[in-house]
Amino acid sequence: MTRFDDRPRFPRGFRCASRNAGLKASGKDLSLFASDTPAAAAALFTRNHFPGAPIQVGRELVRGGLLQAVVVNSKVSNVATGEEGVEHARRMGRAAASELGIAPELVLMSSTGVIGRRLPIEKIEAGLVGMAAELGEDPVVGAEGIMTTDRVPKAFSLRIGDALLTGVGKGAGMIAPNLATMLVYFFTDAEVPAAELDALLREAARDSFQLLSVDTDTSTSDTVAILANGRAGRVDPEALLGGLRALSIRMAEAIARDGEGATKLLRARVSGAASDDEARRIARAIVESPLIKTMAYGADPNVGRILMAVGKCFECHIVPGRVGARLQGIEVVRGGAASPVDEGRLRALLAGDPVEIEVELGVGAGTARAFGCDLTEGYIHENAAYASS
Amino acid sequence: MTRFDDRPRFPRGFRCASRNAGLKASGKDLSLFASDTPAAAAALFTRNHFPGAPIQVGRELVRGGLLQAVVVNSKVSNVATGEEGVEHARRMGRAAASELGIAPELVLMSSTGVIGRRLPIEKIEAGLVGMAAELGEDPVVGAEGIMTTDRVPKAFSLRIGDALLTGVGKGAGMIAPNLATMLVYFFTDAEVPAAELDALLREAARDSFQLLSVDTDTSTSDTVAILANGRAGRVDPEALLGGLRALSIRMAEAIARDGEGATKLLRARVSGAASDDEARRIARAIVESPLIKTMAYGADPNVGRILMAVGKCFECHIVPGRVGARLQGIEVVRGGAASPVDEGRLRALLAGDPVEIEVELGVGAGTARAFGCDLTEGYIHENAAYASS
Repeated sequence: MTRFDDRPRFPRGFRCASRNAGLKASGKDLSLFASDTPAAAAALFTRNHFPGAPIQVGRELVRGGLLQAVVVNSKVSNVATGEEGVEHARRMGRAAASELGIAPELVLMSSTGVIGRRLPIEKIEAGLVGMAAELGEDPVVGAEGIMTTDRVPKAFSLRIGDALLTGVGKGAGMIAPNLATMLVYFFTDAEVPAAELDALLREAARDSFQLLSVDTDTSTSDTVAILANGRAGRVDPEALLGGLRALSIRMAEAIARDGEGATKLLRARVSGAASDDEARRIARAIVESPLIKTMAYGADPNVGRILMAVGKCFECHIVPGRVGARLQGIEVVRGGAASPVDEGRLRALLAGDPVEIEVELGVGAGTARAFGCDLTEGYIHENAAYASS
Repeated sequence: MTRFDDRPRFPRGFRCASRNAGLKASGKDLSLFASDTPAAAAALFTRNHFPGAPIQVGRELVRGGLLQAVVVNSKVSNVATGEEGVEHARRMGRAAASELGIAPELVLMSSTGVIGRRLPIEKIEAGLVGMAAELGEDPVVGAEGIMTTDRVPKAFSLRIGDALLTGVGKGAGMIAPNLATMLVYFFTDAEVPAAELDALLREAARDSFQLLSVDTDTSTSDTVAILANGRAGRVDPEALLGGLRALSIRMAEAIARDGEGATKLLRARVSGAASDDEARRIARAIVESPLIKTMAYGADPNVGRILMAVGKCFECHIVPGRVGARLQGIEVVRGGAASPVDEGRLRALLAGDPVEIEVELGVGAGTARAFGCDLTEGYIHENAAYASS
C-alpha cells in the first residue's frame, strides 16, 4: 500500500502561487508553478483532433525536454480560437517567463474552461505581475487556481527514496481516454533524464488516466506533465515508476470521485480476458455505461446491466457461460446467469463509496482496472447551463 | 417526403391484441400480433454477447423464413436466465401457437424488461388464453402492450403501391447500435420472398436503427422483424425499400424522442467525411456525447462541444482547418474555429425540438445522419431505481 503524505508538500525547489485575475467573477483563476532551476520534463497531451492553442504550443515546448514553470488559467480554454489563440498562448508563456526572469521556452502554459471564446490575455498578463513574490510551499494553493467545476482542490505527494513526488490536478467533466485527465502536473526533485521521464509518464498514465472516464467525452485541453529538477539526485527507477503509478491512480480516483455531479467513485476490475487490451475495453465499457452509473447512484441492484455492458463489447472474446461477476464483493453472476442474492444486503453495500464491480471472463489472462463515477442530476444541472454560468 | 397515414392501420390479414397478464401491477404487458396466413419473414437481432432467451430461440425460428405470429411481453426480459429461460421462451411460443391454432415454429417471441429475473411463464400462458378472440384492426393496441418506460405507443403505417406497410415498436432506454432498437415489428401485405425481405430489412436498418442511440448501452433483447403475408401481391422493390427506410427512420426518431427522460430529438448530419463509415462514426459520437445532449436540454449554446465530439473520433480523417458546423441552421464553426453568433437567437432556436447539428468535414464525400435525444434529470430518475420500480 503506497503511503501518501497526510498533507501534500512540494519537492525541494518547487513552489506555486494562485490568484484571481478577473477571468472569473470570484474565486481563483490563475496558477503559477515554478522550479528554482530548469528541470527535465515530459508531457502527454489530448488526442482530440481539435487541441487547444496551449496544446499546440506545448507540444513544441516539451520537445526540448526542459521546463522550469507552468502557468495555468481556468474559465476559458483557448480552444477553437485560430491563429489569435496560438499567439495568446505564447503571450501567456512570455508573461510568466518575464515575471519569473527566465527564458520563455521554459514555461508550459495550459488553459481550461469554455471552448471557442477569446482568451482574456490582457487580464492574464496583468494578473501575473507580482506573482513571483507570492510563490509559496503549499501545492494546494496551485490546485485551487486551476479548478473549474471541481469541488475540491487535488494535490498529493509521496516520498520515493530521498526524493519527493507531488501531483497537482484538476478535472471534473469532459473526461475520457485518450487522454483522460484534464490537467495534471507532477513535480519531483529526483534526478531523471527527460527521455526516461517520458517513458515513466506514459507507463504510469496507461494504468490510470488512460482508464479514467467521467463522461466519455475527451477534452481538447488534456495535459499531463512532469518536471524533475534533480535536487535529490538519482532514485531507484522501479521505485519511481511505482510511486508515479500509485500517485497517478490516486489522482485519477480523485478526479473520478469529483466528477461533475458525482457522489461516488466507480471501479471496474476485469480479469481472465483474452488480452490486457480486451480487459481494458470491457472495464471502460462498464464504468462508462449510463445504466451502470445510474445504478451506482440509485444503489438499486440491477445486475443484468453488468452483463449488458460486458456483452456490448462486440469485438471482444466472450464466452457467456464462463462469465462471473461480483458487485461490492458479492457474487451476482455465475456461468453467465444471474446468481441468487440477498437484495437488501446488496442494496446497503451499493449505497457506499466506492462501488466495485469485478468481472471474470474465464478465457485468458488479460486484466485491467478502470475508474469512473456515478451519473446524477448534478451532471445534468452543471452541463445544461455551463457556457452561461 | 414520405406520407404516413394519419392513423396507423394494419395491412390486410394482420391483427393484434394486448392485455394485462399480471406481470405489471397495472397496464398492459402482453401483446399478440398475427397474420391470417403464414408470412415470409426476416429479422435482425442484438449483437450483445448476452442475448436473451427469446433471441436465442428467435434466431433458429427465423432461419425458416416463415412466421405467422409474434408474441411479446414487457416487464421481464428473460435474459441471463440460463437453460430454464430458453425453455420458458419456447413455452411462450407454444402457448401463443396453441391459442391461434398454428404450428409453434411460426411464432416469434420477444420479452423486454428487467434482466436476470425468472420469466413468469405461468402468467403468460394463462394470459394468452382467449386472446385470439380479441384480435383487432388497431396496431396501437399492440404497441401499448409492449411499452416499458415508453411514454407513448409507437405505430405508423404507409401505402406502397397496392400494399400497406406498418411498423409497431417500443424502446426508450438501453439503446445503441448494434442493434439500436429494442423491439420493432413490421407487417406488410406485399408479396416478398424471405431472402429479399432480409436484404431490405438490413438496408433500411443501416440508415435508421443502426444510427440510433439513446444512451450508448446496447440492449440484450433488441429485435427488428418483418412479416410479409403477400395478400397484396408483388410491389416495386425500390418503392418497398424506400418505404421501409422512411418508416424505419420515422420509428427511430419516435424512439429517440421518447428516450428515457428525453424532451427532444437530436439529429446529427455529417457530410464531407473520408467515407460513409467515418461519417457514421462521427454522427454517432455527436448524438452520444453527454455534453452535446445536456447542451440540447439546457438550450445553452456551447458550440465548442461540437468540435470536441468530432475531434474525439481519433481514427477518423479530420483536418481541423476545413471543419464547419451549423446548429439549428446557424453557422457556429468555420475553418475549425468558432464563428461569431447571435447568442440570443441561437439560444431561442436551441430551445426547439428537434435540435439539428450539421458538420461538414471537407475531406471527402462520406455522409451519414444519426438520431439521439437530450439528456435530462428524467433519465437519472428512471434509471437510478428501475429494478425496484
